[in-house]
Amino acid sequence: MHQLKLTYFDSLGRGEPARLALKIGNIPFDDERIPIEAWSKFKHSTPFGELPVLTVDGCQISQSNSINRFVGRLANLYPNDPVQALYCDEMMDAVDDLLQKVVITTVIADESKKQKEQEALLDGPVTLYLRRFEERLQENGGKYFAGNDLSVADLKVFVWVQYLLSGSLDYIPTETVERTAPCLLEHFNRISQNPAIKRHYGL
Amino acid sequence: MHQLKLTYFDSLGRGEPARLALKIGNIPFDDERIPIEAWSKFKHSTPFGELPVLTVDGCQISQSNSINRFVGRLANLYPNDPVQALYCDEMMDAVDDLLQKVVITTVIADESKKQKEQEALLDGPVTLYLRRFEERLQENGGKYFAGNDLSVADLKVFVWVQYLLSGSLDYIPTETVERTAPCLLEHFNRISQNPAIKRHYGL
Repeated sequence: MHQLKLTYFDSLGRGEPARLALKIGNIPFDDERIPIEAWSKFKHSTPFGELPVLTVDGCQISQSNSINRFVGRLANLYPNDPVQALYCDEMMDAVDDLLQKVVITTVIADESKKQKEQEALLDGPVTLYLRRFEERLQENGGKYFAGNDLSVADLKVFVWVQYLLSGSLDYIPTETVERTAPCLLEHFNRISQNPAIKRHYGL
Repeated sequence: MHQLKLTYFDSLGRGEPARLALKIGNIPFDDERIPIEAWSKFKHSTPFGELPVLTVDGCQISQSNSINRFVGRLANLYPNDPVQALYCDEMMDAVDDLLQKVVITTVIADESKKQKEQEALLDGPVTLYLRRFEERLQENGGKYFAGNDLSVADLKVFVWVQYLLSGSLDYIPTETVERTAPCLLEHFNRISQNPAIKRHYGL
């Protein structure tokens, strides 16, 4: 068994799916959470100046979806079949593509510019990607994104939908998921009933 | 055996490592190349409006590193060991991170702004990432990025270095790789001697 430490901020985001996977798989790990105010000092100790970082037997490795895949394998949350693994990987990478487009707008200081850019995202990629995610879910049977079973792709989408529902994005309404891709909301509600996820969030 | 079609532009870039992997593995595939002038019409027929797309037995799947991993498995260019697979994945994702930062500067119309941004990249992430890539290579024995053997991570870095050496970036000199990370240039030269790669480029 590997000695694992997952280092991320004390928040949702790119490190959260791996935390959930490790909890679901009942895999012991050191859940290291870096306070935002400590980040500028800590940054230089990471491989590429970014979090999350997974330390495996003393070696630091970065890149969130690479980490998700590794812990997904350990937790039996990654498909063995190569084509299903490809679907799982595609979803994780697509969520990151969308997340990247969205996250850069959250730091725009000029409020009217932020509004304009977030509204453009809502009309464009947010709607396109949510619809495609829903289609992928349906193509794969409607319940899970790959391999007819819970995988790290489901956890990745779960955390993304959680973010949209949280109201963190000022000009992307929390109703967007329900309006655009209702099956994704059902998927979210179903995944949130997982006993390990409920325990993780103290529910 | 799967029926495979790899769709990408007729250029280097995100689709090239998968082309190389398929050629090295001697795996038959339809090498579909979309002329830039046809892209705006073709775009809507792709899953997320982006290339590359791999069509596996009639199903279109996107995301370059997901595709690299899948064809890497088919071509015996992806590590079986999960930790080595994690190193392979990390490298591919890190190259994409860097590529993303760089590519957005190539379309800046204002020449002095482009210069400023590319010079800032050179002082910042380009140097940081190249040094880290070199360190990773050395940590893994100096020859390959993962599993002590040629993998899709090597092909991903190879295509990135090829791009830097091509002079396509006006304010990032072609000597950057040699100056910053000479082991990466050795790695590039070694990989470029692979017989299938030589045939692919008509050398």
